[in-house]
Amino acid sequence: MTAPPILLTPGPLTTAPETRRAMLVDWGSWDDDFRELNQRVCRHLEAIGGGTGHVCVPMQGCGTAAVEAAIGTLMPRSGKLLVLVNGAYGHRMVKLTATMGRAVDTYETAEDTPPDPAELARRLAADPAITHVGVIHCETSTGILNPLDELARVTAEAGRKLIVDAMSTFAALPIDLAWMPAAAVVASANKCLEGVPGLGFVLCDKAELDAAKGNAHSLSLDLHDQWAYMRATGQYRYTPPTHVIAALDVAMARFEAEGGRAARLARYRDNCRHLLEGMAELGFISLLDHVIQAPIIVTFLSPRDPNYRFADVYRALKARGFIIYPGKTTKVDSFRIGCIGSIGPGDMDRLVAAVASTLDELGIADTAPADDASSETDMVMP
Amino acid sequence: MTAPPILLTPGPLTTAPETRRAMLVDWGSWDDDFRELNQRVCRHLEAIGGGTGHVCVPMQGCGTAAVEAAIGTLMPRSGKLLVLVNGAYGHRMVKLTATMGRAVDTYETAEDTPPDPAELARRLAADPAITHVGVIHCETSTGILNPLDELARVTAEAGRKLIVDAMSTFAALPIDLAWMPAAAVVASANKCLEGVPGLGFVLCDKAELDAAKGNAHSLSLDLHDQWAYMRATGQYRYTPPTHVIAALDVAMARFEAEGGRAARLARYRDNCRHLLEGMAELGFISLLDHVIQAPIIVTFLSPRDPNYRFADVYRALKARGFIIYPGKTTKVDSFRIGCIGSIGPGDMDRLVAAVASTLDELGIADTAPADDASSETDMVMP
Repeated sequence: MTAPPILLTPGPLTTAPETRRAMLVDWGSWDDDFRELNQRVCRHLEAIGGGTGHVCVPMQGCGTAAVEAAIGTLMPRSGKLLVLVNGAYGHRMVKLTATMGRAVDTYETAEDTPPDPAELARRLAADPAITHVGVIHCETSTGILNPLDELARVTAEAGRKLIVDAMSTFAALPIDLAWMPAAAVVASANKCLEGVPGLGFVLCDKAELDAAKGNAHSLSLDLHDQWAYMRATGQYRYTPPTHVIAALDVAMARFEAEGGRAARLARYRDNCRHLLEGMAELGFISLLDHVIQAPIIVTFLSPRDPNYRFADVYRALKARGFIIYPGKTTKVDSFRIGCIGSIGPGDMDRLVAAVASTLDELGIADTAPADDASSETDMVMP
Repeated sequence: MTAPPILLTPGPLTTAPETRRAMLVDWGSWDDDFRELNQRVCRHLEAIGGGTGHVCVPMQGCGTAAVEAAIGTLMPRSGKLLVLVNGAYGHRMVKLTATMGRAVDTYETAEDTPPDPAELARRLAADPAITHVGVIHCETSTGILNPLDELARVTAEAGRKLIVDAMSTFAALPIDLAWMPAAAVVASANKCLEGVPGLGFVLCDKAELDAAKGNAHSLSLDLHDQWAYMRATGQYRYTPPTHVIAALDVAMARFEAEGGRAARLARYRDNCRHLLEGMAELGFISLLDHVIQAPIIVTFLSPRDPNYRFADVYRALKARGFIIYPGKTTKVDSFRIGCIGSIGPGDMDRLVAAVASTLDELGIADTAPADDASSETDMVMP
């Protein structure tokens, strides 16, 4: 087998060989050794969250299931969620809330525009039925970073509860539950923690979780039931993805060895800077203003050159050892490149070289976006 | 590291090193290679199911989530499920159906007694509100095998739909959807397929699935949505457990190399026979009559010897390289030993030798069950 490509897709992403090798052992899910491993992982996730009032409830499955579990469990059936939408993951939060039969409303901004905390305050004042606010910390459909701290402050001042989808930021960007009020912060193993996919988790405000018995619309996704059973027994209620959890344990040991969250963020920032600068030298334009660009994933506008086709570029880059992502914006033709995973700035430099060689191979000379690309949105070019 | 113990727990179970090594590669979930792998796995699962009218819809997470997804998606909100209960997994099916707010009733028999198809027919005739019947093929809380074919026939004759939890039997015991009527057969990667945990799947009657749009109580667990998206794109809606799926693909290639379902069943039967005979020689009594004992997991009655404590036996066996399971019956004190996984009769012989040496070490001389153990149930001793 040739060396597998580097994943520049923000989860699943490139993990360290040591992390994957943790999956070479079968664990008994009932066994003390696994319970201890599981408890270590949960306590570690709580420590990264920074608060003492939050408990980690892991949930088998994908991150979306964990978001659904958080809303379904922590928001009473009579509650109403206001979702701050500026991308696909915000829309998904609306859809999953509506599907479970709960009241939901949206405050939507353009894909390149963060929500305005003052406008959130106005909307909360105008609708007393709203009990909870849902926010996506980094919308990976574009890579936009939303102003979590201010949104949390406004939500708390209005006496509402916050549910944060921090899927692609947790353990890299600052989230400190010691002072940031939030009923729940949801993330997964396979993003900035650099584990493999198959496990989500929710850091739940303990008082909120205590009060949440009977709220859930789903037994499998009932965080209260999951937590109560795990607290009593040290085990999962239902078969956990043992290998995935063992990999996460190793991935988190690597996280600490690297220097924790700040060191990880510094590396991702380096990755992002090398990516942005290298691609800019090739003439590519990124969608977002640098101020709101999270160092997680970058959206680049598609070149207007008639020889450009995403599928061709994708294949040529894959042949050079890199997997990138298609665009996920609704308004501009684009593609995305992730900055996270067990990769460094050198990998980004090699990617940029691979992009340059791909442009040559495919005869793509004009990397500027189409003239109408920017006119369709209000984006601020960096 | 010393060699990890053999898991005699029926999922997670002992997998082959080759299966685990498949997890050493990171896959891009959007990439063609992974889509192809995913399609291969799904078509392979459909082929094992045997029907041409059923489609495989995989679901991230544990098996229980897949059961919940099947009921939530395939049973209309106005439906009513009759669950045939003779153990913990039947009770769980009742609980998850009630939690999602659907009507549910039970036909319960003792833990060592299969449901009577004639009685099922009577109950279906008596309650026209029942639209669906739920059955656990092998109740691993005891290891009892329920008479699936007859129950399926009766259910179909009464014009109702069957949902089968075949978690611990699929790919070993005969399930042939070419002629057995069932709306859904649910199983998971980490049982008789000998993959690792993290993925469930549902073989859905295609007509039932087609008609199921909008039924689901949960977006994450909506099989129709999962299927429609996967059919259109070849991808999962949300991040799949890529490593788990890659491991399943290798595990299924091993399944074919072994000779398919019949060969796997033959090996498990050998395992079970070696276990039953060896333990009988040591004086242990198994809970179930051989006629209803599935070759999946065996429940043994706890010895009456005052030196017997499950925790001590568990630890002593673990030190000898074997992980067993506690009992899960409600009526008798017992423990369980699984027969499935990447293990053979020789492993069972070594286990029996380890049990013998454990009895010596712990001074357990009297392996007969307590006198009142059998009086608490109606079990037929083999």
